[in-house]
Amino acid sequence: MTSSAPDAQDDLVSRLLKGEARALARAISIVEDRMPAARDLIKATYPRSGRAPVIGVTGPPGAGKSTLVDQLTSVFRRHGSKVGIIAVDPSSAFSGGAVLGDRIRMQRHSTDDGVFIRSMATRGHFGGLASATVDVADLMDASGCQVLIIETVGVGQDEVDVVSVADAVLVVLVPGLGDDIQTIKAGIMEIPDIFVLNKADRDGVDRLQADVKTMLSFVDSRDASHRPPPRIIRTVATSGDGIEALHEAILEFLKSSDPGMLSSRRRDRSRQRLLSLLRQRVLEWASGPASGGAFDRAVEELAGRITDPYTAADRLLQQFSPSKGA
Amino acid sequence: MTSSAPDAQDDLVSRLLKGEARALARAISIVEDRMPAARDLIKATYPRSGRAPVIGVTGPPGAGKSTLVDQLTSVFRRHGSKVGIIAVDPSSAFSGGAVLGDRIRMQRHSTDDGVFIRSMATRGHFGGLASATVDVADLMDASGCQVLIIETVGVGQDEVDVVSVADAVLVVLVPGLGDDIQTIKAGIMEIPDIFVLNKADRDGVDRLQADVKTMLSFVDSRDASHRPPPRIIRTVATSGDGIEALHEAILEFLKSSDPGMLSSRRRDRSRQRLLSLLRQRVLEWASGPASGGAFDRAVEELAGRITDPYTAADRLLQQFSPSKGA
Repeated sequence: MTSSAPDAQDDLVSRLLKGEARALARAISIVEDRMPAARDLIKATYPRSGRAPVIGVTGPPGAGKSTLVDQLTSVFRRHGSKVGIIAVDPSSAFSGGAVLGDRIRMQRHSTDDGVFIRSMATRGHFGGLASATVDVADLMDASGCQVLIIETVGVGQDEVDVVSVADAVLVVLVPGLGDDIQTIKAGIMEIPDIFVLNKADRDGVDRLQADVKTMLSFVDSRDASHRPPPRIIRTVATSGDGIEALHEAILEFLKSSDPGMLSSRRRDRSRQRLLSLLRQRVLEWASGPASGGAFDRAVEELAGRITDPYTAADRLLQQFSPSKGA
Repeated sequence: MTSSAPDAQDDLVSRLLKGEARALARAISIVEDRMPAARDLIKATYPRSGRAPVIGVTGPPGAGKSTLVDQLTSVFRRHGSKVGIIAVDPSSAFSGGAVLGDRIRMQRHSTDDGVFIRSMATRGHFGGLASATVDVADLMDASGCQVLIIETVGVGQDEVDVVSVADAVLVVLVPGLGDDIQTIKAGIMEIPDIFVLNKADRDGVDRLQADVKTMLSFVDSRDASHRPPPRIIRTVATSGDGIEALHEAILEFLKSSDPGMLSSRRRDRSRQRLLSLLRQRVLEWASGPASGGAFDRAVEELAGRITDPYTAADRLLQQFSPSKGA
């Protein structure tokens, strides 16, 4: 598959690799909208990516993740690193939330061309949010971002997938969520590398820390990976308290981690990405014109209870031809 | 693919169709664990399912969904309907939350064999939570449940997929979630059929209702489906206030809805289920022994930046052979 304007594409790639923000923004849009040129763009930039550490930040709504990421970004900037931020926003039919969030956040770092922020909506990625996020991260990386931060609400398999393959995973919790603590505990994905107790000036932070430690001791006995126990860092993101300590803890974690663990995470990221792409290709084939309407007919038969789902899937897959899928 | 014990399987199917709770529980486990017998089980029961209306209940953590579903179940029971409940719980490495939740909830209806409750974890469904949930709903339906309720936290694409194809979609909100209201608004999926304002004895319920109406009026002008505006029902689930009214609103919605809309939702459900199955089959092939290690080799090449993801996916799909995938 070739782009309709290969020269323009080459130009876009070279401007992106030079770190031009507008080229990066354009490239991300191409990838997000899954335009035909996306494929060539990723192919051309892929060898230049994979260098920047990826920090995943997750936690329940209201934990102050955005403020925390903004503050953390300021610290990385003071240390001279170019920062790329991907904010994965739950989106909806009626909010336009991602766009709004983008604008509000852009204001904070708007005069700083060392920060590139992009919001991505959870909807509309056709089964490939994780894949799309990694594509965007790679583009930022290729354009010269030295630290990548992916921020997402920590509920839902998609969001978990997005963040769980980061090089360092931060979970942000806040005291005083009361009887929801069970829900939050249950909603937290993998054991993070660093627990951030944000809004630590609130009542109940000691209790929260005790709860976290209890959870960890419970897990510890069952955890086969023998990782070091996660650090617990207290912050007040709105005032900046604890952010320097958090920054240090992240760097220390990245530096002191077992190289085997980091490369195993990068392998996981590659695996996940490949699975997403495979999935996406099959879905595109099935529901696109290449299947010759076979998919729609199968859906009708299924809805009418004429065929069962397994028989229908078998028949469709026998017709699947990947060469038509792209 | 045949079960190792076809006679036992036949027996299980006939006991399930007679409504035996233990047979239903066993069948669900087979489907959830994707054991080889799952396929035959679904094939055998599929023609007997698709009768019971499916009510989807979603909303943010702490909205009181479980209590609401329990109360609603009691009303359906008083009206003589057998109820099947599927609680989709966010799960984690360290909570065992789904099992715990199951037990707590079971107690409430434990002496009533007209209620069947099953919790499903969001993890471990290999890209097929929605598909697995619909399979379980179909089994409950085939075993004689006359109303099916699927409850899930309304954040995350998987959860949204699960609930958005229900015949009636309820979104539960509560007053007083303060500055998270934007997040919650953004996290709410499609426009529901009924908004439930739970904990309506709390301050702020008028404000919440006004917010909901504002959202609705904003959507209304852009909504192409020309559906009737959703009802707004106030409840206090803990005391049971408003539950009868909610029950009536649900029945009225199901009765008065455009038959075209209901059949279109059932078609959506079939479509989604077929897509999930296709996806699942390809992923199973890729990461299973049938691919002959090609997938693992591709992951290594990707992690080493030797191949780009698109080239790797192309090569893999050329080797894909669906007959080996099952």
